Parts: sequence; structure tokens; C-alpha cells
Amino acid sequence: MPRGERDEMESRWAGGRTEAFSDGVFAIAVTLLVLDLHVPESAMNDLLHGIVHQWPNYLAYATSFVTIGGIWLAHHAIFRRLRYVNTQVMRLNLLLLMTVSFLPFPTGLAAQAVRDANAERVAVIFYGASLLLVSVALAALWRTVVRDPKLLRPEVTQEEVRAITNRSTPNIGLYVGATVLAIFAPNAAAGFYLVIALVTVARARGDSSAPEPEASRAA
Amino acid sequence: MPRGERDEMESRWAGGRTEAFSDGVFAIAVTLLVLDLHVPESAMNDLLHGIVHQWPNYLAYATSFVTIGGIWLAHHAIFRRLRYVNTQVMRLNLLLLMTVSFLPFPTGLAAQAVRDANAERVAVIFYGASLLLVSVALAALWRTVVRDPKLLRPEVTQEEVRAITNRSTPNIGLYVGATVLAIFAPNAAAGFYLVIALVTVARARGDSSAPEPEASRAA
Amino acid sequence: MPRGERDEMESRWAGGRTEAFSDGVFAIAVTLLVLDLHVPESAMNDLLHGIVHQWPNYLAYATSFVTIGGIWLAHHAIFRRLRYVNTQVMRLNLLLLMTVSFLPFPTGLAAQAVRDANAERVAVIFYGASLLLVSVALAALWRTVVRDPKLLRPEVTQEEVRAITNRSTPNIGLYVGATVLAIFAPNAAAGFYLVIALVTVARARGDSSAPEPEASRAA
Amino acid sequence: MPRGERDEMESRWAGGRTEAFSDGVFAIAVTLLVLDLHVPESAMNDLLHGIVHQWPNYLAYATSFVTIGGIWLAHHAIFRRLRYVNTQVMRLNLLLLMTVSFLPFPTGLAAQAVRDANAERVAVIFYGASLLLVSVALAALWRTVVRDPKLLRPEVTQEEVRAITNRSTPNIGLYVGATVLAIFAPNAAAGFYLVIALVTVARARGDSSAPEPEASRAA
Repeated sequence: MPRGERDEMESRWAGGRTEAFSDGVFAIAVTLLVLDLHVPESAMNDLLHGIVHQWPNYLAYATSFVTIGGIWLAHHAIFRRLRYVNTQVMRLNLLLLMTVSFLPFPTGLAAQAVRDANAERVAVIFYGASLLLVSVALAALWRTVVRDPKLLRPEVTQEEVRAITNRSTPNIGLYVGATVLAIFAPNAAAGFYLVIALVTVARARGDSSAPEPEASRAA
Repeated sequence: MPRGERDEMESRWAGGRTEAFSDGVFAIAVTLLVLDLHVPESAMNDLLHGIVHQWPNYLAYATSFVTIGGIWLAHHAIFRRLRYVNTQVMRLNLLLLMTVSFLPFPTGLAAQAVRDANAERVAVIFYGASLLLVSVALAALWRTVVRDPKLLRPEVTQEEVRAITNRSTPNIGLYVGATVLAIFAPNAAAGFYLVIALVTVARARGDSSAPEPEASRAA
Repeated sequence: MPRGERDEMESRWAGGRTEAFSDGVFAIAVTLLVLDLHVPESAMNDLLHGIVHQWPNYLAYATSFVTIGGIWLAHHAIFRRLRYVNTQVMRLNLLLLMTVSFLPFPTGLAAQAVRDANAERVAVIFYGASLLLVSVALAALWRTVVRDPKLLRPEVTQEEVRAITNRSTPNIGLYVGATVLAIFAPNAAAGFYLVIALVTVARARGDSSAPEPEASRAA
Repeated sequence: MPRGERDEMESRWAGGRTEAFSDGVFAIAVTLLVLDLHVPESAMNDLLHGIVHQWPNYLAYATSFVTIGGIWLAHHAIFRRLRYVNTQVMRLNLLLLMTVSFLPFPTGLAAQAVRDANAERVAVIFYGASLLLVSVALAALWRTVVRDPKLLRPEVTQEEVRAITNRSTPNIGLYVGATVLAIFAPNAAAGFYLVIALVTVARARGDSSAPEPEASRAA
């Protein structure tokens, strides 16, 4: 085997364990969000008020949950179409997971800071910048795949590639916009992050190239 | 391929990763419950009393653990019968996971509030409402599947469909009842939640349509 | 199909997702143990002493980690030999997982109580009782399997069945003994729990019936 | 079957569940790191400063994340090449997972201690010693595999074995060096740990022996 070919072979990874590891990180990041929800002991006197008073935490919880859900759907859509994972994709995937598992921190901060006008501005900008980072990492991962068509399964059409690009790229612009908006109107920006996440999930599409998918790993 | 058909194809997802991600969320939500169990430093003088004094936490732990276990069994029963997952099911699954991973919060709250009559009422109602939400999300997921028979594997019988419906639907009514009961008798309602969970697990049935199931993924 | 047979069919579950869910719970329970390790801010003046001073926590961490590791090995050995999972096994598996995911609580308590003679006795007994519960749940699961030979793969020999029984049953006796010992000598009992765990892992054996196992899920 | 052969058969394990359990532990250890990131309530007055002030935590977060990522890549590279897992590999794998899931503790400690010259030295040495332990456990695992060629898939070449050895062994020397450096210059050592992790990930290579890998478990 010529050296160039062997080198290329050496940089191949099977996708299965990468997906399993990624699913683990997504699932944990999304579930750890609940740890930021708690009612202080002092609120026990009027617990109903105490629970309602936590609304910024619920909003932050829902926003980050739906955002990570949308990232997971996009990750799923990408990896379903890969024949194998090369070293560059592997590294970018680790970077993506690092930005995703970081999210509980700015999420908690945004919820915590909401009652202080100055702190809120900073926290919402920081939250938006973190979301921006996630979507940049995702876009870089997809771009790397697209530039090396050998990574894609043969049945994947140009149309599908374009569709995934069209669904993932605009988010970068939206997050830049929302983060700039946060400088002037942090409340509006916070709502905007939730809207972006909901739209992302709503626009997600399945796998037309799935060659008769099986519903269960165990089957 | 005609456009309608292609659109339908595009909304198909393979179920394997959805199950893996869901299993992760279920497993983590169920294991995070333990973080609410702890004995304050001050109880070290009489630790036996300190441990026993935590009984509401153990009850809450057991109730949420068995409840999530029952939801997982129902989730398993549904996904085992799917040929593929469409976009609507995917979204409802994310919603279900969001309500499940939220549960550690009301669980901890209910245990924390149990020594204060007023707080307890609110906490138990809040806990019941959260459980109600979970079972509504689960029922909506199953209903979506039933309305589109193409989602089901061909070997699934009408009888099985009815059996799953019969096992999952009544819980909505039971949780409404228990939550109303919580207004008048929070203690009784708390016990009722545990009974509902135990009965759900006790009524769960296996997969008659499993075509000679293999016990191990690795085999 | 006669009713009896159909009922029996209905109580079958495929093992793959049960293993995946169980692996998740085992992995999380084992990893959450680290959250009990922390050095108080006040120890920053003499951090070396502060780190060494935490030795009971390291001992508790190691004991619970190795114990759960041993349970996981036993769980693996059992499920590898199952053709399918019936409803009773499913329920006992949930019970086993509930006792396992409970372990971080008595683990943390034992480490916390070690500096107070009275509290230590109670905490070590409580820890031993929790370990006893885990091994009873595991033995009940295995017993249920053995009593219904149809659950076992045909290639599993009587010798293997006996070997698993011989490896799992004695732990119940050992944990009873160690917990009684904890009444008189909590320190010795704490060491004994670690020894039991180490011996369990050391005695674990692989799968002779594995029909040419594949090392990778993804292959 | 002669006794020796049967004993050897008995010590075989299928790798699939071992990978699943390991992936779970890796994913959780890596995601729990975020729990050490938080801004104290008092910093809400000047949150921007409060966020920036946490830089040692981000550095520690990134270092441990990339380190565990590199360990996971090496683990993946090893297990992909195994025909089956014997008892010795299983035990060393549990040891490796124990050292990996321990890492959030020294990581948090290093970040916490950074503002106190004396505490920092101790914390960085402790962190380095923990990383050293992880790489020793990994090297011991790989050494055990290499010494028993029957564990390896037949298609694995001597060249690949040497390549993995060359990529994993030097880290032991590097961690010894960095930990000694920490005695004199903790800051430089902290930076060095990150560099080692980045280089490890950068040097990771894929699986040339993968016989046409499939990207998706579910396919």
C-alpha cells in the first residue's frame, strides 16, 4: 500500500463509539441543568411565591435544554451520514463537546444574575457568546466533513448536504445578532435565544438516506 | 421520487441513537436523585436519629426512582415497536426527556418542605403537577405513534397497541386525582404517587413481538 | 397461540436496552462518588495536610468504586447469558439499580462521620447495610434467572450456573458478618468492606460461552 | 476441552459492554468538571470582573477536558483492536476508570488553590500526580494487551502496536517531568499539563485496521 494511502487509512475512526461518547456528554450536560434549580430554605414560608420567583431559572433551563437538544439533532444528522470519522472530525467533535458541556455554567449564571440590571447584561452576553461558540464548533465540524466527500456515505445527495448546511449555518449569524442585542436589551436577547433554539428543533429533519432504519439497537 | 414521498422520507430518523440518548437522560435523572440525600453536620451527635429523620427524602427518592423506572419501561415498550422515528416523535421525545430530567427539582423540594404544613401542600402539588406533565408528554408521544401506523413495525398487533394505551393513559387521570388530593391531604397524596409508580412498574409487560431477542448488544 | 404461551411471550424483553440503561446508572453512580471529595477553604493554609486529612474519603471512594465495579462485572456475567429478560428480572434489575445509585449517600456519610466515634459506628453499620441490600438484590436477580432455565441461552452449562452462584452468594454472608463486626469495631469493618470488594473483583471470570465475542460495538 | 484451555476461555469477556460502561464514565467525568465553575454571589456587583477572575478554573477545566479526551481516544484505539477482553484487562480497565473519575477532585483543587503561592504548589503537584496515575494505568492496560497477542484481532500489524506504544508511553515521562517542575514553578507546570494534553490529542490517529467502519450504531 503506498504511504499516502496508508496514512489516510490510519486517520479513520469508526463512528459508533464517538456517537456513544457524544450521546453521553449531551445527555449529562442536559440533565445537569436541573442542579441549578433550587428554592432557598428561607422561601419555605411562602413556597408558592418561592417557586414562581425562580422563573428566570426555568427559562434558562428550558433555553439550554432545547438548545442542546437542537445541537444533538444536528449532530445526529451529521454522523448518520458519515462512512467513518477522520482525525480532524474527531478533534472538532471533542471541541464541540467541550463547548456543550460548558453550557451549564453560563446558564446558571444568567439565571442567577437576572435581578441585577448590570450583572444581567454581562451574564446574558456571556451566555450568548457561549452559544455562539457551540454553533461555530458545530459549523466547523460540518464544514470539515463537506470538504472531504470521502467521509460521506455514497447515498448522501448534494441536496441533503445543502439542506444540513442551510439549517446549521444561519445560527451563527443569529447568535451574533442576539448577543449584540444583549448589550442594549438583555431581556429581549434572553427570549431570542429561546426562540432560536425552538426554531432549530422545529426545522430539524430526519434521514432520507437511512436505508430502512431499525428502531432498536437490541433487535 | 415524488416530492410528497421524499418529504416523508426526510422526516425519518433511526431509533438507535434516540434510545441511547434517552437512556442516558433517564439513567442520569434517576441517579442524580441521590444528591438530595445528605445528613447535616449538626446531626453527627446523634447520627442514627439524623439518618432516620431523613425519611421524607428516602420516600421522595423511592417515588421518583420508581416513577422514572416506569416511564423508562413504557419508553422501551414504545420504541421497541417503532420501525423509525419521525420528526414529530423526535420532538415529543425531547419534551418527555425535558420533563423527566426536571423531576429531581420537585423531588428535592417535596422532601425539603415536608416539615412545614403550608410548604408541604405547595411542594406536593408542584411535585404532582410535574409527574402529570411527564405522563402527558408520554401519552402524547404514544398517541402520535398510533395515529401514523407506518411508524410501527409490521408485526405489531392491534392488541398490543391497545395494551400499551391501556397501561399508559390511566396515569394521567390518576395524577390529576392525586394532585387534587394534595390540596386537602398532602401526606396521602405523597403516598399515592408512590403507589401509582409501583403499580405502573408492576403492570409493565414485555415484548411479545420481539423476534427472538438477543440479550447482549455485544454478541 | 394458547393464552398461557402468549402471556409468557408478552413478558419477554430484549436485554440490549436494559444493559444500556444499567450501564448508565452504574457509570454515573461510580462517577458521582467524586463529588464527596473536597478540601475546605480553611485548609488552604496547609493544603498538604488538608489533602492527607481527607484519607477517609479516599478509602470510602475506593471501597464504593470497587464494590460497584464488582457488581457491574456480576451484572455483565448474568446478562451475557440471558436469551431474554422477563418482567420479574426487569423489576429486580430496577431494584438493584435503585440500591446501587443509593450508595453515594452512605459512602459520603461514612467518610464524613469517621472522626466521631459514635457517629462512625452508626455510619459504618448504615454503609454495610446498604452494601448488604445491593448484594441481596443481585442474588435475587440471579436466583430468578436460575429458576427459569428458559431465560438462559442454550449454550450455558450447569457448571457456569454453579460458578456464578458460588461467586455471588457468599457476599451476602460476608456483608452480614462485616456489618455485625461494625458494631464492635467500625474501623476493622470499613477495611473489611474494601477487602470484600477487592476479592469480588479478583474472583470475577469471563464468558466461556461467548461464541466468538466481538470487541467493538461499532465494528 | 482440556482444563487449561477451558480456564482461558472462561477469562474472556466481550468488549462491547466494557466500552459502553467506560464511555459512560469518561463522558460523566468530563461533564462533571463544569460543576467547579461558579461565580460567587458577591461578584454580582462587577460580574465581568467576576467572570474573568475565574480564569484558573477555565484553564483547569480545559486541561482536564482535553486530557480525558486524549485518554478516551487512546482507550478507543486500544479496544478497537481487541478480539476479546480478558480478566486482567478488565481489572486494569476498572483501575483506569477509577483514576479518570477521580480527576475532577484535583482539577477543582488546583483551580481553587491558585491564588495562594503555597497551596498552589501542593495543588499542582497533586494534580500532576493524579494525571501520572492515569497514564500509568493506561500504559499498564496496553502492556497487558501487547504481552498476550491472542487478545489482538488478527489484522492488527506490529507497526500499529508499535505506533500505539510510541504514542502512549512518553506521557509517563512527561508527567513525571511536569510534576517535578511543579515543585519549582507551579504556573509553568500547569501550562505544561495543558500542552501535554493538546499534543496527545493532536498525535492521536485513527484505525487503519478498521475493516470498512460503519458510522452509526443504529444503521
